[in-house]
Amino acid sequence: MINPKTTNSSNPDPQPLITLITDFGLIDEYVGVLKGVILHHCPTVQIVDISHQIPPQNVAAASHLLCRSYKYFPPDTIHLVVVDPGVGTKRAILAIRYNNQLFIGPDNGVFSLILRSDDTQVRKITNSDLFLESVSSTFHGRDIMAPVAAKLACGLTFEKVGPILDKNEYYIALGSTATRQGKTIFGKVVYIDRFGNLCTNIRQSEIEELTNKDIFAEDFRISIGETTITTLSKNYQKRGTTNILALFDSHNYLEIAKASGNISEDLDIQIGAEVLVEIRTKV
Amino acid sequence: MINPKTTNSSNPDPQPLITLITDFGLIDEYVGVLKGVILHHCPTVQIVDISHQIPPQNVAAASHLLCRSYKYFPPDTIHLVVVDPGVGTKRAILAIRYNNQLFIGPDNGVFSLILRSDDTQVRKITNSDLFLESVSSTFHGRDIMAPVAAKLACGLTFEKVGPILDKNEYYIALGSTATRQGKTIFGKVVYIDRFGNLCTNIRQSEIEELTNKDIFAEDFRISIGETTITTLSKNYQKRGTTNILALFDSHNYLEIAKASGNISEDLDIQIGAEVLVEIRTKV
Amino acid sequence: MINPKTTNSSNPDPQPLITLITDFGLIDEYVGVLKGVILHHCPTVQIVDISHQIPPQNVAAASHLLCRSYKYFPPDTIHLVVVDPGVGTKRAILAIRYNNQLFIGPDNGVFSLILRSDDTQVRKITNSDLFLESVSSTFHGRDIMAPVAAKLACGLTFEKVGPILDKNEYYIALGSTATRQGKTIFGKVVYIDRFGNLCTNIRQSEIEELTNKDIFAEDFRISIGETTITTLSKNYQKRGTTNILALFDSHNYLEIAKASGNISEDLDIQIGAEVLVEIRTKV
Repeated sequence: MINPKTTNSSNPDPQPLITLITDFGLIDEYVGVLKGVILHHCPTVQIVDISHQIPPQNVAAASHLLCRSYKYFPPDTIHLVVVDPGVGTKRAILAIRYNNQLFIGPDNGVFSLILRSDDTQVRKITNSDLFLESVSSTFHGRDIMAPVAAKLACGLTFEKVGPILDKNEYYIALGSTATRQGKTIFGKVVYIDRFGNLCTNIRQSEIEELTNKDIFAEDFRISIGETTITTLSKNYQKRGTTNILALFDSHNYLEIAKASGNISEDLDIQIGAEVLVEIRTKV
Repeated sequence: MINPKTTNSSNPDPQPLITLITDFGLIDEYVGVLKGVILHHCPTVQIVDISHQIPPQNVAAASHLLCRSYKYFPPDTIHLVVVDPGVGTKRAILAIRYNNQLFIGPDNGVFSLILRSDDTQVRKITNSDLFLESVSSTFHGRDIMAPVAAKLACGLTFEKVGPILDKNEYYIALGSTATRQGKTIFGKVVYIDRFGNLCTNIRQSEIEELTNKDIFAEDFRISIGETTITTLSKNYQKRGTTNILALFDSHNYLEIAKASGNISEDLDIQIGAEVLVEIRTKV
Repeated sequence: MINPKTTNSSNPDPQPLITLITDFGLIDEYVGVLKGVILHHCPTVQIVDISHQIPPQNVAAASHLLCRSYKYFPPDTIHLVVVDPGVGTKRAILAIRYNNQLFIGPDNGVFSLILRSDDTQVRKITNSDLFLESVSSTFHGRDIMAPVAAKLACGLTFEKVGPILDKNEYYIALGSTATRQGKTIFGKVVYIDRFGNLCTNIRQSEIEELTNKDIFAEDFRISIGETTITTLSKNYQKRGTTNILALFDSHNYLEIAKASGNISEDLDIQIGAEVLVEIRTKV
């Protein structure tokens, strides 16, 4: 996705880079502690916050933010996701190599979109030599994931974290991609941003496959709740008498928005709501 | 403003430094994405958040925060301001050299106070070789400003971003400095901080020019809404029977505050409210 | 607390590290200004935010967050705490060496738990050569503490900040540790986290000293407000008919929590509320 036309060949060697997605919030000390452990084990690393305001234990929201952000980071970035409602249970902790980057977090579906690819190597983090000496039952982000991420950032070879898992040994959440029956795409709202815009899991390319016409000239029946939208917009400008719009966001996914105002509150739509896209062309 | 009496001559070469002011909030992935793009194009840069909680599209608030913060950063710092309600329209994107620092952001008045100086070099960012390959119509912070800022941080020469603009080719917001008629200064509230204190655009030096006396011994009529204050305070302590105070903030601008409590809420004052300072001395 | 079983002997020299705890919030420019001053005086430092959302002027909350986080940072980390309701008064500014780390902040009790140790060196910051040239009466974090912290990070010797203080020359807050009379421990709520859990100042080891039995098999009368809890839990799972739980947090302090929901709101408990632990064993 990032293919700059010019490259800066004089760049010095990069610092290792770790990003963080958590549901810890920014009030308490948890994020600071995570960073302390990381810097203790890899003092040269640069740490970037993606978000710490994932709604508590909302694995789907964390998955969504990860997928919208990881591609923008350089090769070898390590993405640490600590949204872990199952901490202290037997759920595994995964380390994944994908797209020249590494991903670390619990095996709870947060990596579903990445794990669906065939081009991943998935390992179960089991090598307790890498953990903090005392592992609590309530904060594996601090005790296991942070030191492993830091040691990988500072040169630990990936193979050392634990054994490879097969496809049937980790969890992929159902329903995190849209499905299609005939001329209808069945998707859902996967995220609601701070403006109340409804982000769906329906890709622009999936809609384009339904028709040979320019999709912006096509007639649709896009349904969410009791609302129907019949055309796709190119921007957030009001169209005719309606200000409820369907458009593609900057990641090329279908988004339902309001020209002004908060559509999520107005229509009382929550994450998980169904979104249908039907093409109405008579062939 | 920063003139330490001692300097530390053993400082090693600094990392390049980029600061960020946006209205993206801290819940969604936008800030993380911006940082990913920056670090992709300049892995050695250090990124500092000034604020991501500018009220959505509030250019004046962003301008205010920038002016209160940039002086504290070292030479060669690059300040990136992404409060950009005109994204996707024909508004230009500016790169400004001022005060041994660089400033990048939309041409919407956010840099007004800096652009009023004669000691600026202003360029329009037009060199699309520097942009991400695919430029969206909704996120120029990511697609244009971030990669340009990063490449400047990693050594790109300033002249390469695009052509110089003359004074009449960029926008300076009216009313962002106070004006004076006789013994009266006409200013306004430019920012309201988290304590509800009203920050104005009236400088201490402008008030001092009105009188030869010590201004703290002077009689004033300082008016905001239906409230009048007659003396300047040196601190936040209650004076006599009133707890509504006029004092100078740590940047030497006039501030209207309440000894305890939130004056913005109590008086229902918003950004943009008029503030008058009249000197009452009979000459 | 951090004793990894393996060490990474190939770690390059670390960057100096400064952590920040303030009550500045994340909306205004104050945190950015603090970082600007730090990076101006020590361009190589890495800055980590612990929290900027300490309730305004709440010294006890800042003290609590500091004590729960500093141990996780590497040796030589400098912890800067700017929660300073007495700014502009005669309160001293302290620099403390403890546990191979440095601590800088006002003498208002925020460092009480550290200062109680005999293994500290406490200095009063008086060397004005280290300050910004112009020191305001309202922002010593920017004008004094930040430049001193930065210069220490970049190699200034600790002795240069000012003279050593004796134990009777700085302030230690009363009541910040629990006390004991016979078989009863008198503690209090020192922090309430974002989930409403009540963090106390009662250590697990203090409770263990009351009995020879496994404390999880012991009968207690743990009292807070009008609520009594009679057993200790090992996790947040509901026990029998009650969902009000007493357990040890990941720092080994007693915590009062609710299996689901916000106990602070339900019982209307504030910071400072008394917590009693009585052992009920008949000997």
